[in-house]
Amino acid sequence: MKYFVTGGAGFIGSNIVDILLQCPDAEVVAFDNFCSGKMAYIEHHLKNPRFNLVKGDILDLPALKNALEGCDFVFHFAANPDIAKSMIETDLDLRLGIIATYNVVEAMRCRNVKKIVYSSGSGVYGDVGLIRTPEHFGPLLPISMYGASKLGAEGVISAFCGMFGVQSWIFRFANVVGKRQTHGVGFDFIQKLKKDATHLDILGDGTQSKSYVHVSDVIAAILFCVDKCHDQVNVFNVATEDYVSVAEIAEIVVRKMGLRNVEFCYSGGDRGWKGDVPKVRFDLTKIHKLGWSAEHTARSALELSVEQLLEDLS
Amino acid sequence: MKYFVTGGAGFIGSNIVDILLQCPDAEVVAFDNFCSGKMAYIEHHLKNPRFNLVKGDILDLPALKNALEGCDFVFHFAANPDIAKSMIETDLDLRLGIIATYNVVEAMRCRNVKKIVYSSGSGVYGDVGLIRTPEHFGPLLPISMYGASKLGAEGVISAFCGMFGVQSWIFRFANVVGKRQTHGVGFDFIQKLKKDATHLDILGDGTQSKSYVHVSDVIAAILFCVDKCHDQVNVFNVATEDYVSVAEIAEIVVRKMGLRNVEFCYSGGDRGWKGDVPKVRFDLTKIHKLGWSAEHTARSALELSVEQLLEDLS
Repeated sequence: MKYFVTGGAGFIGSNIVDILLQCPDAEVVAFDNFCSGKMAYIEHHLKNPRFNLVKGDILDLPALKNALEGCDFVFHFAANPDIAKSMIETDLDLRLGIIATYNVVEAMRCRNVKKIVYSSGSGVYGDVGLIRTPEHFGPLLPISMYGASKLGAEGVISAFCGMFGVQSWIFRFANVVGKRQTHGVGFDFIQKLKKDATHLDILGDGTQSKSYVHVSDVIAAILFCVDKCHDQVNVFNVATEDYVSVAEIAEIVVRKMGLRNVEFCYSGGDRGWKGDVPKVRFDLTKIHKLGWSAEHTARSALELSVEQLLEDLS
Repeated sequence: MKYFVTGGAGFIGSNIVDILLQCPDAEVVAFDNFCSGKMAYIEHHLKNPRFNLVKGDILDLPALKNALEGCDFVFHFAANPDIAKSMIETDLDLRLGIIATYNVVEAMRCRNVKKIVYSSGSGVYGDVGLIRTPEHFGPLLPISMYGASKLGAEGVISAFCGMFGVQSWIFRFANVVGKRQTHGVGFDFIQKLKKDATHLDILGDGTQSKSYVHVSDVIAAILFCVDKCHDQVNVFNVATEDYVSVAEIAEIVVRKMGLRNVEFCYSGGDRGWKGDVPKVRFDLTKIHKLGWSAEHTARSALELSVEQLLEDLS
């Protein structure tokens, strides 16, 4: 089996490349523009004859078609990692989310590749407070271009399934954390405290609370569902059952860094930025019934990810 | 109030221009590239000082921004009218649906225009058989790029509502029929029978059945909901309570054209083309409870529209 991983040098992408290459029959093509992906995340595979790295831009359709030749299965993880940036650059998620995803499925059509895993997210559900959203929740009214790009990309993938016989597994992930994280609240806190260990600027009032799922659980969920589910379009929430607040994450980071007397300075308001959804709750009945649940709680996933990030930085 | 109508020389767009200009205070800017729109649909307004026609491409963002200056309210009706064409030109609905809609709301953001009506459609619901879909139905798994483009455009509009304080009214229309129709099954049948009155090629097996809503009802529903509903994002199904099959439409057209002994030649299969949804059913509880329902049944809307189309052609 020959796998194609967009964002293959990025956070989730490089982690799945590691897992896929453990299978002795697997070949992997990692496609990345190294905007947020890093060579350090994949360089240990460069000498592996079953691994091929293609530096390329996902908005370059001919390059994508070229790289996809002979592949059987696509993991599409490339995306804009900076959610808040679309307030200034409003077409960022349109291009790197929806148009990029169209390019991926169009290249698949041209190369007769029929299977795709897509990393969607909770942003499709919009701001619905404490409602535990199941996969069939509606109406889907995203409040950010990040959310809109996930919804639009899901739609485009679903259309190619209907029109051209593609089979898809769409995962609406909670916030993913872990080794090689390139963004996220814990990641940001570490960067800030490395610069100044006396105080920490925190966006919002700290009460925003969400699920954080470890990247190892994300990959386990993907492989589990691809193995078990064979509908034309398969949609799953992937999250933990517990939720952690931003203030608690700040405390975890401070404790793991061995700091004391850090002053927390909240910017105020119920959310981190315009378009941020302050409370995110998932209904996980579908994937639990299928037999999968996360190994790590949100709290333990965050603790582990902070440890791993600090290790990478040391 | 100064209105901006994209696709203003098209089917629904030109009909709403007529209605809006009946109000003595209204000014209207019609924006159209005349790909499917026609000068004949708006030329009766050209001497009206309250009417302004801008020939322009919705994919040309600077032109759109220019034209939108000083407007208060957008009716966004421009779209690709040829749904089946995306099987060949797969990016057509991406460009004319999602990217075009992004351009509209981005131009609105730049010009500080805060209100938009958008014509979405049943395609967002995908192929769910005889389920009567309410507005909160999910998961939304479109089977065509037409459906995906409507879903993606809804998401982009919703995101701009969340991020930039836009207010939107999103209408998921059944098949719209009536005066100045530029496409659709009844329209196609008339064209075919004008060429050859002895036989009629019909896509599918004729059992496809859908709701057909008259453009006058569509405009009444829009004006009713904009007046009554003031959420940030307002989503409504607009359809009739009855459903008409393609075979019945063929009979209506033949009868209205005064033809006899026309041989119906079905291409076979349960649908007209890949991506066509053969049975479409709406749950209309939301708009009915609000106090609106269609004046015309699907059957009478079709009969009226065939009469109007034949009148235009004579």
